[in-house]
Amino acid sequence: MNDAAIRRFAREISRSHRIEKGGKFRLRDHDPADTGPLDDEDKPRAREALEAGRAALAELQDRLYAQDRWSVLLVFQAMDAAGKDGVIKHVMSGVNPQGCQVYSFKAPSEEELDHDWMWRCARALPERGRIGIFNRSYYEEVLVVKVHPPILRAQKIPRALVGRKIWNERYQDIRAFERHMARNGTMILKFFLNVSRDEQKKRFLERIEHPEKNWKFAAGDVRERAHWDAYMDAYQTMIRETAAPHAPWFVVPADNKWYTRIVVSVAIVDALSRLGLSYPKVDKATRAELEAAGRALAAEKK
Amino acid sequence: MNDAAIRRFAREISRSHRIEKGGKFRLRDHDPADTGPLDDEDKPRAREALEAGRAALAELQDRLYAQDRWSVLLVFQAMDAAGKDGVIKHVMSGVNPQGCQVYSFKAPSEEELDHDWMWRCARALPERGRIGIFNRSYYEEVLVVKVHPPILRAQKIPRALVGRKIWNERYQDIRAFERHMARNGTMILKFFLNVSRDEQKKRFLERIEHPEKNWKFAAGDVRERAHWDAYMDAYQTMIRETAAPHAPWFVVPADNKWYTRIVVSVAIVDALSRLGLSYPKVDKATRAELEAAGRALAAEKK
Repeated sequence: MNDAAIRRFAREISRSHRIEKGGKFRLRDHDPADTGPLDDEDKPRAREALEAGRAALAELQDRLYAQDRWSVLLVFQAMDAAGKDGVIKHVMSGVNPQGCQVYSFKAPSEEELDHDWMWRCARALPERGRIGIFNRSYYEEVLVVKVHPPILRAQKIPRALVGRKIWNERYQDIRAFERHMARNGTMILKFFLNVSRDEQKKRFLERIEHPEKNWKFAAGDVRERAHWDAYMDAYQTMIRETAAPHAPWFVVPADNKWYTRIVVSVAIVDALSRLGLSYPKVDKATRAELEAAGRALAAEKK
Repeated sequence: MNDAAIRRFAREISRSHRIEKGGKFRLRDHDPADTGPLDDEDKPRAREALEAGRAALAELQDRLYAQDRWSVLLVFQAMDAAGKDGVIKHVMSGVNPQGCQVYSFKAPSEEELDHDWMWRCARALPERGRIGIFNRSYYEEVLVVKVHPPILRAQKIPRALVGRKIWNERYQDIRAFERHMARNGTMILKFFLNVSRDEQKKRFLERIEHPEKNWKFAAGDVRERAHWDAYMDAYQTMIRETAAPHAPWFVVPADNKWYTRIVVSVAIVDALSRLGLSYPKVDKATRAELEAAGRALAAEKK
């Protein structure tokens, strides 16, 4: 394949997992073990493509930084062991850290609970010219909080304001928030790494069996498996309610790590390519100044 | 008048300047020199009422702080010399500073311009149990920025996103933002101090003539007077587009400082009174613990 064919191929892969209109989205139509048009034999080529994606991303990010108008927000949501950390590491490693910030959102602090639930994420939004990565995000507010009502009760919201409409209100608030961001120059891409219950079990067992992976495992992770169906329901509703052309969800098959990484990589490169990023043009006057400075430097006595 | 009558009277004053539905709001129906049912002879009584308001506010704020569920956001917008600083000083001085934060928003910094225009205000929102005062706010984005297009151009928003709908988009974003805050326990009150062009001139001249007031004056303030009509138009549209029951505007007559202060004071006290703030109740078990601790203290050897 030549370069153009590869780009087309990559674009097709990324778009086949992209959800821009949530309406009738059904999670069960998306197979966690899907590897698109590729199979195991393509793994070496996939590794090369990932390498190429890293290089492309590094270059696009350099232009993003120089142009200093757009910012990029990448949101990652998934069940435990779906591979969020690995994706961030393998897809983003080529990017200049000066232009890239990763925030991992854990259980909120006292100070964070003392504000509305969007507050801690709003503060952490990426500056213009930068890529911000949210490893978990405000979407936890309609995922873990929805699956575990006691967490909602602990949020210190005045009792009178917590009614039956609360989840719809939260989806609406998220839509409004992302619309505002998009209007002001943030490109938003959201990734749901779709791992199967069986594959999660396999990965948990690996974490328990291999001492060097023990640190990744917490006993509580297994307890969450009891709520699997409630979580899948919450993910599906979340995607239905918040997918939009300016803030699409990518439902990324996550049972095969090599394919997960390829999809995320091409999705980001594809979206960034379409921003029309270019190095700021120098106007005539500045060009003349630059040339004069060049001449002065050349004429300096040794 | 007895206490109940005074409260009724205060409530009437505050409500007569409260706008909850913007639809047909016309600024010219609101006289900057209005003093409601009071006249100059009432000034001494007004001073007493302000004193009473300060005491009431201090007590309400104490309960707000103890209950730790609601937060209060007070937004002040006005032309220069309308008396924002004086109102904040005279109305809020009795409040425990530990539960009260004032943010004055000036021209945005480089870091702030590198985010969406709401960002710097979102970060500064008051915590639960506290009163946050915004001396100017995100409303500047549909006031000074609307009156002076070069400021918009300097905002580093990608060119393709700045279209003719931008002001409507900003009103919509503000409405969504305030709705989100209200849903999560922030009581929002917005004050437009409505000073007349003549009264502003008088106050500017005072600032120029009296050396101890010189520091309050900047030459640029006079230049803004040339845009008076554009500003009034922007204020009117802002109030039409963003007044809501959960985020009302108070159009406060500002040609008479004593009346301005009374209106703001009673508006805040009235709204806080209706939140049903109470000190957290101690449950039986805790009560028993408290009593046991009391007995232990009493039984201590001297």
